[in-house]
Amino acid sequence: MFKGKIKSDFLKGIIDATSILVDEVKLRITSDGIFARAVDPAHVGMIDFKLLAGAFEEYEAEEESELGIDLDKIKGILKLASGEDTVSLSHGKEERLVIQIGNLTRKIGLLDTSTMPDTKIPSLELPAEVVVRTDELYKGIKASEAITDHIVLLADPEGFELSAEGDTDTVKLKIPKSQLSSLKCDEQVKSMFALDYFSDMVKSVKSDEVTLRLGNDYPVKMMFQIAEGNGEVMYLLAPRIESD
Amino acid sequence: MFKGKIKSDFLKGIIDATSILVDEVKLRITSDGIFARAVDPAHVGMIDFKLLAGAFEEYEAEEESELGIDLDKIKGILKLASGEDTVSLSHGKEERLVIQIGNLTRKIGLLDTSTMPDTKIPSLELPAEVVVRTDELYKGIKASEAITDHIVLLADPEGFELSAEGDTDTVKLKIPKSQLSSLKCDEQVKSMFALDYFSDMVKSVKSDEVTLRLGNDYPVKMMFQIAEGNGEVMYLLAPRIESD
Amino acid sequence: MFKGKIKSDFLKGIIDATSILVDEVKLRITSDGIFARAVDPAHVGMIDFKLLAGAFEEYEAEEESELGIDLDKIKGILKLASGEDTVSLSHGKEERLVIQIGNLTRKIGLLDTSTMPDTKIPSLELPAEVVVRTDELYKGIKASEAITDHIVLLADPEGFELSAEGDTDTVKLKIPKSQLSSLKCDEQVKSMFALDYFSDMVKSVKSDEVTLRLGNDYPVKMMFQIAEGNGEVMYLLAPRIESD
Repeated sequence: MFKGKIKSDFLKGIIDATSILVDEVKLRITSDGIFARAVDPAHVGMIDFKLLAGAFEEYEAEEESELGIDLDKIKGILKLASGEDTVSLSHGKEERLVIQIGNLTRKIGLLDTSTMPDTKIPSLELPAEVVVRTDELYKGIKASEAITDHIVLLADPEGFELSAEGDTDTVKLKIPKSQLSSLKCDEQVKSMFALDYFSDMVKSVKSDEVTLRLGNDYPVKMMFQIAEGNGEVMYLLAPRIESD
Repeated sequence: MFKGKIKSDFLKGIIDATSILVDEVKLRITSDGIFARAVDPAHVGMIDFKLLAGAFEEYEAEEESELGIDLDKIKGILKLASGEDTVSLSHGKEERLVIQIGNLTRKIGLLDTSTMPDTKIPSLELPAEVVVRTDELYKGIKASEAITDHIVLLADPEGFELSAEGDTDTVKLKIPKSQLSSLKCDEQVKSMFALDYFSDMVKSVKSDEVTLRLGNDYPVKMMFQIAEGNGEVMYLLAPRIESD
Repeated sequence: MFKGKIKSDFLKGIIDATSILVDEVKLRITSDGIFARAVDPAHVGMIDFKLLAGAFEEYEAEEESELGIDLDKIKGILKLASGEDTVSLSHGKEERLVIQIGNLTRKIGLLDTSTMPDTKIPSLELPAEVVVRTDELYKGIKASEAITDHIVLLADPEGFELSAEGDTDTVKLKIPKSQLSSLKCDEQVKSMFALDYFSDMVKSVKSDEVTLRLGNDYPVKMMFQIAEGNGEVMYLLAPRIESD
């Protein structure tokens, strides 16, 4: 048995962030909160999130359970709530998730979780960490989209750089250390990524800042807080092989 | 000869409400105001409206006349007026309706009304009457659209209910009597309707509240005021046969 | 060598105005400012603009140069700047135009200007001149688009008129002299134009007023200021032959 009441925007944030990678997700519900982890079908991007009990106005989860969720259905019903509306979630004996917004009750059939794989987070040593403004990152992405489909992320002791190269055109977003909220980097690291994945990930960041952990030709870890600090999203994105 | 000046929004409201059912309409113009009645080509929905002379800033109609109107043409020209702009309408000997907005004059060729049928409103006994907030109704419709193409409307002495059922999913909007502006209902009545028609009708309601009259497996009547009380729209929607 | 800093909106205005006619343009850069002239592939419309050094916050152009520009690329990068942002432009020895917005640097490959023709402005005697509000003109155009694909512009000593005629419908925008900012017209002049070109031209006007110069079955000249008076756009549009 699970029951929870939460501000609509908090739930929307986590659903949107997950739906850039997968259509369905297995939610693990414990007395601490809601957890999920998923890898996209092409095995390029991973999401791992927690939405802690503290993010909820009311929260009650007797025993641990797993719910298989169709993300589009939840997105559809959340569109009918304004950001400050409270959304009630509950799940009892029935194989349905009950969502209530005001006078409206929506029951969503649950998916079979037995076919949804368990995902492990690979252990990675990512020596550099950058905390950067989300809107700056977004501009770099938008400019890059016009000329190519992959970008290079680079950190060195002086700052952070996003760059893209087309046939005749280039884009460079160079943020000096002084304009970064934090920079931990002893020596230059550099990796290349698929722009469409990176773009989707950055667009789903709801906080003003995002933390990036980088290595050399290694995955990037992107982390940001949700639900006013009562939860976190971690994305992992595999690198592309640079052909130079 | 007919001449009238009216606030653009008042005219827009009535034109939009009619155009969800038909492309063309026969306006009956009398000294009391403008009247029209139309049934959609599939004979599922009907509109009956009156826009009284009191809705106009100036109004003059010497003898009764009938004008065949292409609704898309009027909608197009009204888009050029802001809501508070005054629109002048006139019709003289010429077979054209003259519409003036500021310095702009648009003449619209009239349609032959001889082929447009006269429509009678069927006499119906609809025992229940509910006055409900339009935005509540709208949320119920939007939620239902995700799972099915028909809805059930139900009234009983305790309140009003809109419900929809898909294969695994359900939607229920249940408004208790205390949250309704008015409820007249001695015993439960229930009818099923095509969601697309009902949705179009509710979306064209410009007032905060709408009155529904319901029976058992019977049409629903939907009524709302326009032009600050100087007119009214009545929709009639045929029921679908429930197969249970 | 050329360097300039300019408010994003000023640059956007001129790029948008040019891109309604051509995809590429040859910019002539002198110590006085930036100049361009282009004719659309169908030879129906021409643009001639100047963006004076005074429009720039900083401006430096050592010797005269010509840059071949892909307009879509510039439009794309300018979308990332808000209207008040400063955009830095520079061109050195490299065959690329460097555009900087904050921390973002975009290098755009230049096009070969040797294949871009030089364009001369035909000398025309256009006896009538009208200064008209852009939004009035815009309404006349929108109304006309619903019924036909060409319009007639007419000036006489009493005022200015835009009219369009469909099979059964007509549009007339008639602005009396008293509502025009200026009217110089000794006798009636009248010409017909392709509505799509005229519409695109009027939509790209950023100032409140636009000056039209007209003759009898002759091109129309349209002129408006840009960059707060530090520049001007002149459009020339060839007439259509009226078949009556």
